[in-house]
Amino acid sequence: MKIAATVEEIRSAVKAWKKEGLSVGFVPTMGYLHEGHQSLMQKAVSENDRVVVSIFVNPMQFGPSEDLESYPRDLEKDATLCEASGVDLIFHPEPKEMYHPDFSSFVDMHSLTDSLCGKSRPAHFRGVCTVVTKLFNIVQPDRAYFGQKDAQQLAVIQQMVRDLNMDVTVIGCPIIREADGLAKSSRNSYLSADERKAALVLSRALEVAKQLLANGERDAAKIRNTVSETIQAESMAKIDYVELVDARTLQQVDSVERPVLVALAVYIGKTRLIDNFITE
Amino acid sequence: MKIAATVEEIRSAVKAWKKEGLSVGFVPTMGYLHEGHQSLMQKAVSENDRVVVSIFVNPMQFGPSEDLESYPRDLEKDATLCEASGVDLIFHPEPKEMYHPDFSSFVDMHSLTDSLCGKSRPAHFRGVCTVVTKLFNIVQPDRAYFGQKDAQQLAVIQQMVRDLNMDVTVIGCPIIREADGLAKSSRNSYLSADERKAALVLSRALEVAKQLLANGERDAAKIRNTVSETIQAESMAKIDYVELVDARTLQQVDSVERPVLVALAVYIGKTRLIDNFITE
Repeated sequence: MKIAATVEEIRSAVKAWKKEGLSVGFVPTMGYLHEGHQSLMQKAVSENDRVVVSIFVNPMQFGPSEDLESYPRDLEKDATLCEASGVDLIFHPEPKEMYHPDFSSFVDMHSLTDSLCGKSRPAHFRGVCTVVTKLFNIVQPDRAYFGQKDAQQLAVIQQMVRDLNMDVTVIGCPIIREADGLAKSSRNSYLSADERKAALVLSRALEVAKQLLANGERDAAKIRNTVSETIQAESMAKIDYVELVDARTLQQVDSVERPVLVALAVYIGKTRLIDNFITE
Repeated sequence: MKIAATVEEIRSAVKAWKKEGLSVGFVPTMGYLHEGHQSLMQKAVSENDRVVVSIFVNPMQFGPSEDLESYPRDLEKDATLCEASGVDLIFHPEPKEMYHPDFSSFVDMHSLTDSLCGKSRPAHFRGVCTVVTKLFNIVQPDRAYFGQKDAQQLAVIQQMVRDLNMDVTVIGCPIIREADGLAKSSRNSYLSADERKAALVLSRALEVAKQLLANGERDAAKIRNTVSETIQAESMAKIDYVELVDARTLQQVDSVERPVLVALAVYIGKTRLIDNFITE
């Protein structure tokens, strides 16, 4: 396994593979890899001849008051995990390799990005679309793997790929959880022991929603209220949003009929965590 | 030569060529082809194994009061010219093939697009960047050819390709003129006989600027004023802009030192024409 820091190295490695007729899988990450990323890498390895993982904490998708500087980083541990998963090449660029001084282009969309995480993180998805476009153009993968935990990100990228005719198959992969239910996230490393316990309220609240749905409840407002009450009962938790939206358009629904994304974002202390599920 | 209306047809043709190791040149156009386009096609044919020309009047780059509906179209004549030039494949999609009903993504940039044509055509370059991104993703060319007549468009596309790591070489080609100096343009077909004569004021005004520069004039304001006076002397002409800008940043200059783009847009009757040159 090789670690490359430049666009040029990635391009030449991928071009050599393509010349041999090999397929290329791609897992874009911000590093500090956990079992969620591992599941993406393993799926990529199983479905492609060669796999590239990018590890890049993308400044463009962080707001001015967000955790860009403190975002956890551990390249050595990441590289070990990538190698163990069968990854062939890591792309680990410096920010200046990705954004030259007079960089000024961006990719964005009118739909999907205003609700949910886009509401509290206004330029976030512009940053995501732009860096993913760049990474796709650099790696030119046949298939790219994204976690369902970032449900809105996955929906946005699928829309972008469709709209802009990007020649890549986007594959969403299930959320991976700790044994007690907490969705795996690099940001879990911010949590103190007490916060770690409190953070269970996210998955617990989603279980409450699942139970209501299993019992035949279809009223989105009622489900939202019960979920919110569950979260509010945890004193360390502060709701950013609890939403039931159409799984494709991300527009709020009144009633749960078609597939609905039940999504929430909750601050546990200063750490913002997200979790979700899609109804059958 | 084949004419394809679907993304799928283009993709499969290009993939077959790439499998054979053939290089692909691309000339994106809005059709109603003239000798300017022909020079792009001929250069593309001379530098690539296969050449694709797109003919698509892109609704997204027209403003609400612009000439989308009346823009001249003649596919039959275009196809004859393409075939004579050695083009292998024409991509001629319907608007609905390019923009499905829930289309919502776009590509744009913060720099380069506010000045010159961007001032009087506010969403124009967003439309250009978006459609060119789509076309590049569909055709996946090694080289793409654009005319220097649309100088700002060429600068914008070069910036976009650099910023977004698009794997294509953008090649700018010189302006082609009628014998009397008028820059070739599909929009010249709008001109009445009298307007056609009046339209010569564009190239004449640029010649005045060249003469001033040859005589050692370096003051951008003086050159701009003399060019404007030349245009104003033609009663059928109405200036949209006369600008001297840095050829790379498109920022106004006070003095002509580095390469400067001398660019103008002028209404002749209802027809908006552009022309330019870059100082040595």
